Amino acid sequence: MGKLTISSRNAIMQESPIRKLAPLAVKAKSQGVHVYHLNIGQPDIKTPQIMIDAYHNIPPVIEYGPSEGLHSYRKKLVSYYKKVNIPVDESNIFITTGGSEAIIFTLLSALSPGDEVIIPEPFYTNYNGFAVMAGVNVVPITTKIENGFDLPPMKDFKAKLTPRTKAIVICNPGNPTGAVFSRERLQELVNFARKNNLYVISDEVYREFTYEGTATSILEFEDFEDNAVMIDSTSKRYSACGSRIGCIVTKNKELLKLILKFGQARLCPPSVDQVAAEAAIDTPDSYFKAVKKEYQKRRDVAYTELCRIPGAVVPNPKGAFYMVVGLPVKDADDFAKWLLSDFRYKNETTMVAPASGFYATEGLGKNQIRIAYVLKTEDLKKAIHILKLGLTEYKKK
Amino acid sequence: MGKLTISSRNAIMQESPIRKLAPLAVKAKSQGVHVYHLNIGQPDIKTPQIMIDAYHNIPPVIEYGPSEGLHSYRKKLVSYYKKVNIPVDESNIFITTGGSEAIIFTLLSALSPGDEVIIPEPFYTNYNGFAVMAGVNVVPITTKIENGFDLPPMKDFKAKLTPRTKAIVICNPGNPTGAVFSRERLQELVNFARKNNLYVISDEVYREFTYEGTATSILEFEDFEDNAVMIDSTSKRYSACGSRIGCIVTKNKELLKLILKFGQARLCPPSVDQVAAEAAIDTPDSYFKAVKKEYQKRRDVAYTELCRIPGAVVPNPKGAFYMVVGLPVKDADDFAKWLLSDFRYKNETTMVAPASGFYATEGLGKNQIRIAYVLKTEDLKKAIHILKLGLTEYKKK
Repeated sequence: MGKLTISSRNAIMQESPIRKLAPLAVKAKSQGVHVYHLNIGQPDIKTPQIMIDAYHNIPPVIEYGPSEGLHSYRKKLVSYYKKVNIPVDESNIFITTGGSEAIIFTLLSALSPGDEVIIPEPFYTNYNGFAVMAGVNVVPITTKIENGFDLPPMKDFKAKLTPRTKAIVICNPGNPTGAVFSRERLQELVNFARKNNLYVISDEVYREFTYEGTATSILEFEDFEDNAVMIDSTSKRYSACGSRIGCIVTKNKELLKLILKFGQARLCPPSVDQVAAEAAIDTPDSYFKAVKKEYQKRRDVAYTELCRIPGAVVPNPKGAFYMVVGLPVKDADDFAKWLLSDFRYKNETTMVAPASGFYATEGLGKNQIRIAYVLKTEDLKKAIHILKLGLTEYKKK
Repeated sequence: MGKLTISSRNAIMQESPIRKLAPLAVKAKSQGVHVYHLNIGQPDIKTPQIMIDAYHNIPPVIEYGPSEGLHSYRKKLVSYYKKVNIPVDESNIFITTGGSEAIIFTLLSALSPGDEVIIPEPFYTNYNGFAVMAGVNVVPITTKIENGFDLPPMKDFKAKLTPRTKAIVICNPGNPTGAVFSRERLQELVNFARKNNLYVISDEVYREFTYEGTATSILEFEDFEDNAVMIDSTSKRYSACGSRIGCIVTKNKELLKLILKFGQARLCPPSVDQVAAEAAIDTPDSYFKAVKKEYQKRRDVAYTELCRIPGAVVPNPKGAFYMVVGLPVKDADDFAKWLLSDFRYKNETTMVAPASGFYATEGLGKNQIRIAYVLKTEDLKKAIHILKLGLTEYKKK
């Protein structure tokens, strides 16, 4: 009781690399500068009208719902999954407050404090935060920009195994890399995980956003029912990030029972947002076709424009709406800050996320940035042009 | 990697005593039996129209908001707190997904793994779940039904202190007891916590529901700014439990910085629900007057009716809408189950929450139940009448 302290977790809890430069952006804007945001995956795509309209159906009392989510919503989700070839029933589905809570509850329930989870890096940086919350340790396994951040060979995974390894987390299609793993590579991972009694927790929130072929779900593999946990969210699918509805899907009943206990402790996910998410399932296919076409166009523009930057290493992303790009700089963190604080072109600048924060291994990704291609193509072109001009100027320093 | 296992947390993660009898209630209902729910704090009071209407104002893209909550909402909350004599500014307010997340984030940020938090029991059972999630240990301190579950003397707290004690959690007005702590008793607690460098985390979500005088906030005490953390929620205040908007209020900047890091990991609380919560702040005083009057009437009815049960110990609750009642039975858990599965009066029965689940000390509260007086007075009378008849019948067994 020496003195009032805060948690020791402060030392291991990272600041968001996506949001940490925000104060510099705020300052630039206060100076009247227009900032193109390539740093954050906030799409400008409209939320489906059918979902918006559902918010008008509010009951006279906004009550608690069941801890596992509204029955009608879970039932309706089964039809959505059927459509994308994922055979599940409603007892396999647990509704959460966003994909974030889905991952936290899965880590809390599948792993004991001090256990280890292997995650291919660069990875969605918030996995770190979720691991800190759940008291488990992240063991990174490095993927390479040269081969489009594909899954590393199983011998690399094997080298990371310890008696405390309990799970592997993948994001497929991948944030921040845009990688989409082939069925064959996933089958290798599944065999490896089955043999070593590991969970594979597969974050599939970008399922709809693939530009070559379709993404394979971890739930499609046979004889892997107890090991497979799928994380999902309505945020990106319906461009409804603020509605905070996600879910855990697994056939592991024992795991779900423990997840339910954590779910009961926090009572329930938001009720009205669930009603809206349920309505969203009837979004016409034409919506997704148009959205996918738009993103594909954006990806193509981003890829083409970035390739014009001398010295840049640009893997062509296959899915999601992110890409990690190598730049001819030593310290992309410093460059990103400088863009916001010092560089202006026609009173505009570009905000990117330094990629080092997406690596758990110290020292990796220092020359890389993550780009979210969530802007209209004309803005995207301008933003990348500014990046290119900035780079030339920056290197003169 | 011996075999696929679930987390060791399963052994310490309690099932909700409020919800665990739910399957029995479902079964009774499927048999056409009407069940009076005295087990759960789901009010039947209408959500203010001004809040419902706000759900109609949906932007075309439901975007992420700031991790700390919408700026306009935090600003507006300052005016609400001013009205209830809690002087804070918006930088002291962090918006969460319900009071649940507020407590989880506070425990994660104020305590290190393995640290201890003292909580007067019986307490809101989900504090246990939050403690498991945060990897901290609950040290209960027993309060007595004979003196209305008032705060124990400081010497009792002192006896619980160890080098790992970092915080005290109180709920004021209290769930499940209905106790409201006097300013004098709170001042003793504040002095004790200040002297021993402990946080006092005060769950004040039932602020509006006091039937004698007003509740004192932990934020009202001087020279205690860094130690005081207040937990709040819109769930009960606006009868909007399903909207899942809460907040943490504290003047401890260092603590808030770490809370923000956890907040960034989960991105943001639900956006549309925050807009609705902001609108709710303009709910006219007449709404609260009517609601309080209604609850006071219910409390009076519940108290009067329960006092008619021979052998019952019934403290008159001063706040919230719960009460813990001692019954002339050995095992209230068994009695509660039996009411649902075996007892019928005019094809109706009553569901209560056994109170043992609200105690952390094994063996305490075995003859007690928690009652939520959230029903209309005529239903409340019937429900308690059934309880009384059931008790007579049960004792004949």
